[in-house]
Amino acid sequence: MLLNCDLGESFGSWSMGMDSQVMPHIDQANIACGFHGGDPLTLQKTLELASEHGVTVGAHPAYPDLVGFGRRSMNLSREETIAAVQYQVSALDGMAACHGLTLSYVKPHGALYNDMMAKSEVREAIMAAIAGYHRPLPLMLQATPASQSHREEAGAAGITVLFEAFADRCYDDNGQLLSRRKPGAVHDKPRMLAQVEQLLTQGTVTTVSEQTLTLDADTLCVHGDNMEGVQAIRDIRALVDAA
Amino acid sequence: MLLNCDLGESFGSWSMGMDSQVMPHIDQANIACGFHGGDPLTLQKTLELASEHGVTVGAHPAYPDLVGFGRRSMNLSREETIAAVQYQVSALDGMAACHGLTLSYVKPHGALYNDMMAKSEVREAIMAAIAGYHRPLPLMLQATPASQSHREEAGAAGITVLFEAFADRCYDDNGQLLSRRKPGAVHDKPRMLAQVEQLLTQGTVTTVSEQTLTLDADTLCVHGDNMEGVQAIRDIRALVDAA
Amino acid sequence: MLLNCDLGESFGSWSMGMDSQVMPHIDQANIACGFHGGDPLTLQKTLELASEHGVTVGAHPAYPDLVGFGRRSMNLSREETIAAVQYQVSALDGMAACHGLTLSYVKPHGALYNDMMAKSEVREAIMAAIAGYHRPLPLMLQATPASQSHREEAGAAGITVLFEAFADRCYDDNGQLLSRRKPGAVHDKPRMLAQVEQLLTQGTVTTVSEQTLTLDADTLCVHGDNMEGVQAIRDIRALVDAA
Amino acid sequence: MLLNCDLGESFGSWSMGMDSQVMPHIDQANIACGFHGGDPLTLQKTLELASEHGVTVGAHPAYPDLVGFGRRSMNLSREETIAAVQYQVSALDGMAACHGLTLSYVKPHGALYNDMMAKSEVREAIMAAIAGYHRPLPLMLQATPASQSHREEAGAAGITVLFEAFADRCYDDNGQLLSRRKPGAVHDKPRMLAQVEQLLTQGTVTTVSEQTLTLDADTLCVHGDNMEGVQAIRDIRALVDAA
Repeated sequence: MLLNCDLGESFGSWSMGMDSQVMPHIDQANIACGFHGGDPLTLQKTLELASEHGVTVGAHPAYPDLVGFGRRSMNLSREETIAAVQYQVSALDGMAACHGLTLSYVKPHGALYNDMMAKSEVREAIMAAIAGYHRPLPLMLQATPASQSHREEAGAAGITVLFEAFADRCYDDNGQLLSRRKPGAVHDKPRMLAQVEQLLTQGTVTTVSEQTLTLDADTLCVHGDNMEGVQAIRDIRALVDAA
Repeated sequence: MLLNCDLGESFGSWSMGMDSQVMPHIDQANIACGFHGGDPLTLQKTLELASEHGVTVGAHPAYPDLVGFGRRSMNLSREETIAAVQYQVSALDGMAACHGLTLSYVKPHGALYNDMMAKSEVREAIMAAIAGYHRPLPLMLQATPASQSHREEAGAAGITVLFEAFADRCYDDNGQLLSRRKPGAVHDKPRMLAQVEQLLTQGTVTTVSEQTLTLDADTLCVHGDNMEGVQAIRDIRALVDAA
Repeated sequence: MLLNCDLGESFGSWSMGMDSQVMPHIDQANIACGFHGGDPLTLQKTLELASEHGVTVGAHPAYPDLVGFGRRSMNLSREETIAAVQYQVSALDGMAACHGLTLSYVKPHGALYNDMMAKSEVREAIMAAIAGYHRPLPLMLQATPASQSHREEAGAAGITVLFEAFADRCYDDNGQLLSRRKPGAVHDKPRMLAQVEQLLTQGTVTTVSEQTLTLDADTLCVHGDNMEGVQAIRDIRALVDAA
Repeated sequence: MLLNCDLGESFGSWSMGMDSQVMPHIDQANIACGFHGGDPLTLQKTLELASEHGVTVGAHPAYPDLVGFGRRSMNLSREETIAAVQYQVSALDGMAACHGLTLSYVKPHGALYNDMMAKSEVREAIMAAIAGYHRPLPLMLQATPASQSHREEAGAAGITVLFEAFADRCYDDNGQLLSRRKPGAVHDKPRMLAQVEQLLTQGTVTTVSEQTLTLDADTLCVHGDNMEGVQAIRDIRALVDAA
């Protein structure tokens, strides 16, 4: 099980995320590509940091919405989505190569990620963008009960997939993340570590209604927004290394 | 002698340039990369058009100034310039590869081009950006009496250069373009064709004060903003093909 | 019956719309405020033109989506919508006052307009934005069979409304514009002029299935994208003046 | 002597400045207008905070350069500068009025401020923008030995001025701020408080070479970027209140 984290989301003079504290403890850095965060200089510095720590880098493309940080769904056409994804992946891919790194996967950001999971036409457009990219790159999606079906869609499109689970979020019985507006949506630390342990040893999570749900996850999404998050990543790292 | 033209400068719903009329007649398309024009979908369509007509593609990076169309000098730091150039070149390079094209050179746009010609620190930063790119790409500069010196600077930076001359602009005795504010700055059609003919046959231009100036140019910059421009390109094409 | 038209939608070096040809023939200019088009200099020039021709000016606020020209629905929160509308209205209001003009109404643009008509929560947020503005401004909505209900919503919010009909678009039996993807969605010129005539004399339109539908419209939306549109506006102007 | 501080410079999800800690201790809030920071929602929240604490609000317009935070000089034309300033002032003015506040002055931000102080043509354009605004607003400039001459320029343009001094910056003998690259450019706390005390009691500062320089200042610029800055503001407030 790998650990992935969203990084490189600062923008110009505005700083976001404890990137230098997080980087030593993760396996995969999902790096912003400029559309929701991540100006060129931030990309460059984040790639340097990833290179220093031997972290695998992935592109984290988003809707073109800086002020909304890519968190607001936008109704792009299929061809707009394809072009937007290919542009962002290309920008990061080339800059990674300038630092001797090989871009290794694509994980959509924010509302684009949510729309990918919820709407088959958005998922199809993203898969088409990656299938049309000039070299193979896996797409990272959320591990859910639909993962097998998503794997088949990807196979039909000619691409491969990675699945991620969430360490700190409570799942509902359908394998969706419980809405943040509901009580218990975000685990406290003991529950988070218990969820990680269960994923590592049994490949399951316990849902909000105490059901046991199988999740086939390649990687765990962790968050390094503040020092508390960084400490949680260290603790999860220790669990994963021990497993 | 090749013909190069700035293309792909539309943005979203705003159209600019007679790209489809121009593309059949040029050798090199300088394609906007998103910072002064050229949204992802425009890039994609422009690359398709270049591919269709077998036109060589180059990156046309700019200062980040959409509303000013990259025409206003901006005081970027060296590292900001490097990152901005590498980001734009990467974005276009990857998208070109998605269309089976190989990005072949870099020509800065607008104020970034002018600053490159006028300020050694901007030129140095641009050369460093290209030298740090993950594969060799020539830089296109304006052919002037300083070309040899620019070639040496490039050699020291580890990159190669291309030089361009202008078909429709009057030169001053220093080999600079006569300011557009001065009378005679832009040639009428007979003078433009005469200048092209002279460049093709003698490698010189006649300056505003009737001096003969040697310009070592690999390529001629032409403009396809309107139907008149497109017709001029056809006429220049005929001269070049006849040479 | 007044004529309103979207104007001031150029952006920097990109031109859009035949503003100077249109302005002499309309009563109300819906002026872009910078979020989908209309940089500060374009606003200024458009206001000068409106002032010259004695045309009433309204604000035409949009989702913050330059590359999509405000035509893509975005999932803004209520408070984001309120702030975005008040910011844009304020910007145009102040600049109008600099030209001796008084901003007279607000007409949302593109996807924001469509969402206002389709989603009560978007309509509520827009009405709250205008109700919270520091002086009264009417909101322009589409005249539909729901107009009375919209008028009541506006009254409850403490604002007034204007309703507009479309000259060149075919209506369905529910009073919605027939989707542009359907045949007959956009009238040819004789049908357009007939629709205007019917609106002027009877206050009705004939729907796609030949029903007669009452539309209580204060103003007619016309389009000046090209010379054909400008000529259509002149013809509609003549009909309105004759009525 | 009043205290002024730059506020409202967050942007979307990116936070900047300790605005809620600073607001209780200052007299004048220079509020970002959206071009270098300050999205509409941030403006709204900053205005609410100013209203709560009875702080006077001013517009803090900038070059259109989000990624550079308005700190990079840009070569705008005179008419572009005028339109950009009027747009930003208008946006904040209208939103202030929505919160029952009256915008009271204009203080340019960053590179626009520096260019205003250094280049007469930029200063002239800014003064023309404010003179052309639909109601009188004073312009805040830096207090220097040229203040009288700046006051005369403003008078000729038909506007009034305010002058500010800096609490924490060392002055050179010409009354310019010592470049941040030079040793001693930024005062430690004891020196800063001594400079404030000297300005309050004698209207002078002691320059880097120990000269005494008269500065005719209406207001002191303070900074609330971090908790240290907030504490410094409290200490300066105490000195000013005691004076």
